[in-house]
Amino acid sequence: MRAAFHQQLDALAASIADICQLAGSAMQKATQALLQADLALAEEVISCHDDIVLRTRRLEEAAFTVLALQAPVASDLRAVLAALKNVADAERMGALALHVAKITRRRHPQRALPEEVHGYFAEMGRIAVSIGHDAKDVVLSGDPQKAARLDADDDAMDDLHRHLFTVLMDKEWKHGVAAAVDVTLLGRYYERFADHAVEISRRMIYQAGGTGTAVGQA
Amino acid sequence: MRAAFHQQLDALAASIADICQLAGSAMQKATQALLQADLALAEEVISCHDDIVLRTRRLEEAAFTVLALQAPVASDLRAVLAALKNVADAERMGALALHVAKITRRRHPQRALPEEVHGYFAEMGRIAVSIGHDAKDVVLSGDPQKAARLDADDDAMDDLHRHLFTVLMDKEWKHGVAAAVDVTLLGRYYERFADHAVEISRRMIYQAGGTGTAVGQA
Repeated sequence: MRAAFHQQLDALAASIADICQLAGSAMQKATQALLQADLALAEEVISCHDDIVLRTRRLEEAAFTVLALQAPVASDLRAVLAALKNVADAERMGALALHVAKITRRRHPQRALPEEVHGYFAEMGRIAVSIGHDAKDVVLSGDPQKAARLDADDDAMDDLHRHLFTVLMDKEWKHGVAAAVDVTLLGRYYERFADHAVEISRRMIYQAGGTGTAVGQA
Repeated sequence: MRAAFHQQLDALAASIADICQLAGSAMQKATQALLQADLALAEEVISCHDDIVLRTRRLEEAAFTVLALQAPVASDLRAVLAALKNVADAERMGALALHVAKITRRRHPQRALPEEVHGYFAEMGRIAVSIGHDAKDVVLSGDPQKAARLDADDDAMDDLHRHLFTVLMDKEWKHGVAAAVDVTLLGRYYERFADHAVEISRRMIYQAGGTGTAVGQA
C-alpha cells in the first residue's frame, strides 16, 4: 500500500515537473513572439495552453484518486495537498505565458514593445525559461541547492522588473501611454511567473524538511 | 460520522465566507484610501491582511484535519478539495486589496489617481464590495441566483476595466506615464479580484450540481 502510494506520489511529481517545463517553454516562445511580433508563434503558445489545462485537470483527478483510494494521513496527506497547490501554481505559470502571447496577438502587426525595452524582456524571458527548469528540478529532487538557484533567478527577475519601471517613469520615455500600459502589464506577467515558481519551490523544500516557509505561505 | 463530517464542512464554508467578506471590506477601505490619499486607512488595510493570512492558514489546517480524520471519498472528498481551492482564491482577493493599499502608501502624500479616473475606481470599489458579499452568499447557500448576480457584477467590472483602458489610450491623456502605470496596475488588481470571486462561485455551483464549469476551470 505504501509502496503504491509513493509510486503514485512520484507520478504526480513527474507530471507537475512536466507542466513547469512546459510553462517555461511557453514563456520562451511567448517572449520570442513578443520581441519579433511573430503572430504564428504567439498563436502556437495560445493553442498549446489547452494542453497545459488538460494536464492540470488530469493531475487533479489523479490526486483525487490517490486521496480517495489511499486515504493518506500525516506527512503523506500533506504531500498530496502540496502537489495540488503546485499544480495550481504551474497552471498559472502557463496562463501568464498565454497572457504574453495574447498581447503580441493584439498588437500584431505592430510590435508591442519599443526597441528601448527589448533587452529587458529578452532577459526576463531567458530567466523565465531558467525558472521553469529550476522548478522542474526542485519538484523532482527537492534539492535545496536547486531551490537556491531558483530564488537567485527570482531576485534577478525582480531587479529587472524594478529597472523596467525606472525606464518607464523616466522623463525621457517617448513611446506614449499605450506602450507604457503594455510594458506595465507584460512586466507584471513575468514577475508573477517567477513568483509562482518560487511558491512551488518553497513548498517542496518545506515538504523535504528544509528551511523554506510553510506550505502556501511563500 | 457523516453528521460530524457535514458539520465540519459547514464550518469550513462559514470560514471561507468570512474571508470573502473580509476581502470585500478590505477592498472597500483600500479604494477609499486610494481616492482620498488616506495613509492611515491604507495602513489599516495592510496590517489587517495578516488576519486574512492567519485565517487562511487555520482553514487549511482544518481542511487537513477533516481529510486525515474522516478520509472522505466521492463527492465529500470533492467538497473538501473545492473548499481548499476556495480558500486560496479568497486569500488572493485579500492580497489584491493589499496591493491597492500599497500603491496608495507608495504615492502618499500624492494621490495615485488623476481626478479623471476617480469615478471608475469609485465604481470598481463599489462592485468589489458587492462581489465580496455575493461570494460570501454563494459559499453559504450555493444559490445559483446569487451566483448569477456575482457574474453580472463581474461583467460590470470587466466593462469598467475596458473603458478605463480606452481613457488611458486616449490621445487626451495628460497625466503622464507614471500615472498611467499606476492606473494599469490598479485596474488589473480590481479585475483579478472579481475573477477570483467568479472562480469561487462557479466552483460552488458546480459542487451543488448546477451549471457552472468544473472545479478550477472557471
